[in-house]
Formats: sequence, structure tokens, C-alpha cells
Amino acid sequence: MIILKVGGGKKINWDYIAQDLKKIREEFVIVHGANAWMKEISERLGESEKMIISPSGQISRYTNEKTMDILTMVYSGLVNKKIVVSLQKYGINAIGLSGADGRVWLAKRKDAILSFQNGKTKIIRDSLTGKVVSINTQLILQLVENGYVPVITIPAITPDGELINVDNDRAIAVMAKDLKIDEIIMLFEAPGLLTDPNDEDTLIKEVKRSELEDYFKKTEKRMRKKILGVKEAFDNGVKKIYFGDGRIPFPVSSALNGNGTIFS
Amino acid sequence: MIILKVGGGKKINWDYIAQDLKKIREEFVIVHGANAWMKEISERLGESEKMIISPSGQISRYTNEKTMDILTMVYSGLVNKKIVVSLQKYGINAIGLSGADGRVWLAKRKDAILSFQNGKTKIIRDSLTGKVVSINTQLILQLVENGYVPVITIPAITPDGELINVDNDRAIAVMAKDLKIDEIIMLFEAPGLLTDPNDEDTLIKEVKRSELEDYFKKTEKRMRKKILGVKEAFDNGVKKIYFGDGRIPFPVSSALNGNGTIFS
Repeated sequence: MIILKVGGGKKINWDYIAQDLKKIREEFVIVHGANAWMKEISERLGESEKMIISPSGQISRYTNEKTMDILTMVYSGLVNKKIVVSLQKYGINAIGLSGADGRVWLAKRKDAILSFQNGKTKIIRDSLTGKVVSINTQLILQLVENGYVPVITIPAITPDGELINVDNDRAIAVMAKDLKIDEIIMLFEAPGLLTDPNDEDTLIKEVKRSELEDYFKKTEKRMRKKILGVKEAFDNGVKKIYFGDGRIPFPVSSALNGNGTIFS
Repeated sequence: MIILKVGGGKKINWDYIAQDLKKIREEFVIVHGANAWMKEISERLGESEKMIISPSGQISRYTNEKTMDILTMVYSGLVNKKIVVSLQKYGINAIGLSGADGRVWLAKRKDAILSFQNGKTKIIRDSLTGKVVSINTQLILQLVENGYVPVITIPAITPDGELINVDNDRAIAVMAKDLKIDEIIMLFEAPGLLTDPNDEDTLIKEVKRSELEDYFKKTEKRMRKKILGVKEAFDNGVKKIYFGDGRIPFPVSSALNGNGTIFS
């Protein structure tokens, strides 16, 4: 079984992904983002997104109740179902789930998060943010064994039944551990990890596990979180992680064939 | 197994429903609406809802692509997940699904629908509207056997992988047939079927199957569609249908005990 994580940009081509998955003889669990839609719908609803930067430079979404409503609509509704139909169109029997459904992503809420702004550190207590701590592997395996492709996204759920925003990239590290997964593919709107994020010709073809710390320090924002996810996935027993381009034909095969970045 | 259909009003008390379900020793499949939220979010997005009235008096939602996006967000995202967490909070392992997930509600799109307005009949061809024709019973039974409570809502999906708006009340009649279900409970924001829809003291305690045609002619709008759903459910082998109040404590037991309207 392979975990396929796909970013939430609008240039991701789900027709290409579906056509490719249909041909590959392998079981997949899909995790996806929805950033671009989240930004658009938030603006249309007059609720601009607020980001929190931690003292260590981690970026995350400030998620109060209003934001959680929009996030739930956009991620587990609009985008999740758009992906489900894209896959169904090519005969892949996709089932969309939020982390709350069947407690597939059980999470712990953070009591407080630190925000670093204008040289000052602030404590934020009302953000519905947390971390996935365990996976309902029984549900995922049961669906996969019956020929379904689970398509999973935020929010996650706490044991008390509260919806919680978690980081998708770090959630897949926990999934990999609980499902004993060897390989993860991450597709986004770039050919892979780039030396210069603004120049697609600066693709890094290979990264050794020992070099990860260096890359973590060098990268910024979302890519930094992806590198953190990669680190955690390795710590959780994953052997190989592929970064690849979600905009091109045969994006999954292409990543597996080493046309993006291979972490090993 | 019982199908529990719950209306989409904001006065429906999901805590009461969850507490009640937790105590009843029976398997449930839940179907829900989200009308009140649909109206609110549509307005906030500047897309007012348009209704179509057929020449025979049926009312339905005009569903173009924009409406479908909002419908998908609100029904299968926001409200579906709110219900899932309400149930999870009381230890009911709910899994929210749209009709598209695992093709649980496979539908046929209508080529055209008739709209009757200002004395004229118009043909509408771009409404993503249809009818559920079959149910993925294997998926529902597999989930229920493993202790999950499926929580299902629109949209449905066509064989070509298109999202389609269908009538929830009529979809449950097809579910009842395919799942060989004897009993359906329908909860909404009223004590049951009323002689005068504006007077909650005019509850009709019992309706015989032979009287349905009369009631169909007498009722209007949404209630008329519910009566149509009841008729179709009886045609599909259902033995008893309960209408009950979704706002009160123990709403499910209360309906089963005959405190609403019993159709038999």
C-alpha cells in the first residue's frame, strides 16, 4: 500500500492522476489539501485567512470556529467530493472521508500555540489546532480490501468529539506508522524539491535521510512543513518518499520513476 | 435495520438524537438534509437559491454548477461533519458519506425538467438534478456490520461520475427497497403530520396506506414530497413509517412510541 498525498492547488490535474492510478497495480490511500479553494471561499465569505508563525518558524492556520466551519465545507465537502468524482469517472471506487469519519484521524488538541509577531511571542488559546495521534487502521484496511480507495482530508477529531485542524503532511507520517507503509508519494505544483523555489529548473533529484536536517533549515513555509513530514515519516519506518509534479500526465508513475525528488 | 431521516432545520437537536440512538438496540442508517444552512451560506456567497415548481406542483432546487458547489460544501461538508461529531461525542461511530462516496447513491440525471411559472411551462436543461436508481448495499452493510453508523446525504453520482442533486426523501425509498428495510423514521421541526401546517396542535396520529393519496393532494411543498417518499417507500416493501419531532428529548423513541404520526 502506498500513501499518495496531493496538494491543494488548482493546477493539480486530477484527470491525469486518476488515469495513472487506474493503470498502476497497487493499493493507494489518498490524502489531499485544498489551500487554493480555502483561500477563495474564505474571501468570498468575508473571512480572510489568518496565519500563525511559531517562534521556530512553523506556519499554521489560525482556526477559530468560523474558520473551522469554512475549512470543513471546503476540505471535506467541496474539494473532497470533486476528487471523489474525478476518480469515480475513471472507474476508481473512491470514498471520501474527513478525519472525523469513523475517527479515522484521532487527534489531540493543543492547549495553546505560540505566535511570533513583530518581535513578540503571543499565546493563542482558541485555535482548534492539534496533532493526529492515531489512525483507524481497521477502517482503512477494510475499505481497501474491498476495492475502495479512501480519500482523506482534514479536519481530524478529538476523543471528545471536537473537530480539529491538523497538518496533512504530518498526519501522513502517523498513517505510515500505523499502516506499516514503506512508500509515500507527494504531488504538488512543482517538479519536486527545488534549490530555488522560484526556478523549476533547480530540481534536486535525490536527498539522503542524513541531509534532511540541512534541507529543513534551508526551506521555508509550506515546503518546510513537507520536509518535517518527511523526517517524521522516516522516523516512523517509511523507506522511500517521492516528491513529484501533480500537473503533468502520469504524475504518479513519473514520481515513482524518479522524475521528481527521491528521499531515501 | 432502520432508516432514520432527519430534516435540515436548525432547531433539530442532534444531542438529543445521539443520546437516544445510543440507548436503542437497533442498527441505524441516517440520511439528513441541510436546508437551513444551504439557504444561509448561499446568501452569504451572494447566490440566492432558485426553486423550480413542476406543472404537477413538485418543488425542487434549480441546481446549476455554482449551486452544486455550494450544495456539496454545505450538505456533504459542513452539516454532514457537524452531525458526525455530534454522534461521535456520544460514542456512536458515525461515518459521513455523500451519495458519491463509493457510489452509495447511484443516480440517473434528468435530461430536462419542467418549470411552471406565471402560467407558462418552461423546459430547463442545465439543472444537475436526477433520481437515485440504486444503492451500494454492500458498502452500507459492511459498515453497519463493523459497528459504524453511516450518515448519508446529497449529492448523488451518475454512472459517468457527475454530481447530481436528488431528493433525500425519495432516495430513502430506494434505500429501503435495496436494503429490505421494514421501518423508516422521519424527524423534522414539527410533531408529525399536521392538518394545519401552522398549528402544532393539529397532529394526525395515524394514516393508513389507503389514505395516502388524499394526504398527498392536501399537503404542499416539502411535506408533499415527504408524502410522496412515504408512498414510494410503501411500494418498495416498507411496513411502517414514523414521523416525529426532531427538537425534543428522546426524539427517536418518541416517534417509535407513536407520539408523532404513524403510517401503516
